[in-house]
Amino acid sequence: MTVKTIHELKAGDAAQFSKTIAESDIYLFAGITGDLNPAHVNDEYAKNTFFKTRIAHGMLLAGFISTVIGTILPGPGTIYISQELNFRAPARIGDTITAHVEVVQVISEKNTVRLKTFCVNQDQTTVLDGEAIVSPPKAAKI
Amino acid sequence: MTVKTIHELKAGDAAQFSKTIAESDIYLFAGITGDLNPAHVNDEYAKNTFFKTRIAHGMLLAGFISTVIGTILPGPGTIYISQELNFRAPARIGDTITAHVEVVQVISEKNTVRLKTFCVNQDQTTVLDGEAIVSPPKAAKI
Amino acid sequence: MTVKTIHELKAGDAAQFSKTIAESDIYLFAGITGDLNPAHVNDEYAKNTFFKTRIAHGMLLAGFISTVIGTILPGPGTIYISQELNFRAPARIGDTITAHVEVVQVISEKNTVRLKTFCVNQDQTTVLDGEAIVSPPKAAKI
Amino acid sequence: MTVKTIHELKAGDAAQFSKTIAESDIYLFAGITGDLNPAHVNDEYAKNTFFKTRIAHGMLLAGFISTVIGTILPGPGTIYISQELNFRAPARIGDTITAHVEVVQVISEKNTVRLKTFCVNQDQTTVLDGEAIVSPPKAAKI
Repeated sequence: MTVKTIHELKAGDAAQFSKTIAESDIYLFAGITGDLNPAHVNDEYAKNTFFKTRIAHGMLLAGFISTVIGTILPGPGTIYISQELNFRAPARIGDTITAHVEVVQVISEKNTVRLKTFCVNQDQTTVLDGEAIVSPPKAAKI
Repeated sequence: MTVKTIHELKAGDAAQFSKTIAESDIYLFAGITGDLNPAHVNDEYAKNTFFKTRIAHGMLLAGFISTVIGTILPGPGTIYISQELNFRAPARIGDTITAHVEVVQVISEKNTVRLKTFCVNQDQTTVLDGEAIVSPPKAAKI
Repeated sequence: MTVKTIHELKAGDAAQFSKTIAESDIYLFAGITGDLNPAHVNDEYAKNTFFKTRIAHGMLLAGFISTVIGTILPGPGTIYISQELNFRAPARIGDTITAHVEVVQVISEKNTVRLKTFCVNQDQTTVLDGEAIVSPPKAAKI
Repeated sequence: MTVKTIHELKAGDAAQFSKTIAESDIYLFAGITGDLNPAHVNDEYAKNTFFKTRIAHGMLLAGFISTVIGTILPGPGTIYISQELNFRAPARIGDTITAHVEVVQVISEKNTVRLKTFCVNQDQTTVLDGEAIVSPPKAAKI
């Protein structure tokens, strides 16, 4: 993990986190949120949907963005103010998703940072994008 | 589960989902997303933070909104287009969170619906809010 | 979720819940119950059994019946009095199981209902059946 | 684990399994079965129920009986034919449940055994009882 205060951040700073989506990730996410939508947990149902297979919850992918923000850039101590999410394409079991976070603007007087956030799969197809606003930690300690 | 097509939806339609946040919810969410930010999983660290205790991941709470959208309103078959999230207050272990989804506008010509989405705790404090855009299923089957 | 009192139930009322069995479902069920019978969690052992593969715990399938009773028919507030379970065929990883609950008899004077309960797989093979007796909630609130 | 064939079983043989019910057991059971009945996962709702607190799923307790049958008596290789379940009292977070299985009758010509099965809590209150019919393994190997 890394921690950066507002003074250590500048536009263009970037960090990533990658994970291959397992069936168990989707099933556990379904269990803890209660989202047992058949698109996620019913393979017979999914065969007849537009996407043809079970797909990951969009918020599971969004969780990977939170992982980057909360553990690397700016890291522990960051206050998450807001996040826009545009769901662009589905992620399936076996897809490897990389969440990207890039600093767009540092607003020192408000101690906030605008971040470009997006997730791509192994083919570099964007599955999710949107902007985040966060308040970095005041001190760089974990 | 319930399913509604665009023709069955009108402004003011609403649905909810409630759950008490367990420590295991936070730990499993941390495990599947990789967000092991100490604010979520390190009680000693958390004692020295602004919030004083471990808190739930914001995206876990956002997941409850997805639960309502994907299983009740409009329900299975819905395509999630976008979601704005404003993180207003922390949710802690033992808090009972209710996710609310309300139809704000039905845009029939685009087969999309604007939804007011928010989560409150047992004291009716808003912990999360923002708007969602979704495309309801074309047919009302699960 | 839906809730029905004894006055809102009649013979023939029916509800279902479906889920594809994931390996993680079986492993988590094994972990929380302690039933690490190799028929469920040891693939090498399972190759030499009558069923040739790992199979799901019968009580996991029975849990899907409880899901229908406790969340849809009659729903939250129902008191579960008894359940007979006849294990008819195995369920395997990847099978999609549908739990069915149907009202057989409404016994108003005792506030109890007899339910036909069974689970089938994607080929409509019955994997589990038996009758349940439940006491519906006194008031239709969640 | 132990394994017994029909020839090694006699009326009166008994075995047990005990576990303290954790909140995580209930939450994981809810997640894998989809039974997010608020009686199990919503503490605010539960305060207003007859039982006053969240309670464990009855089928989780039934799973402990399956644990004894499938891992000790008769053990791996047993075919589970049927199980009657009478839900007598609730089990709560922190309760220590002991599942008991006792041989009632050995029916050698059918290779089946009748078992008395029940679960008690730490105060010896019966929370669950009923009879099981099983077919022991033909050979005593694990």
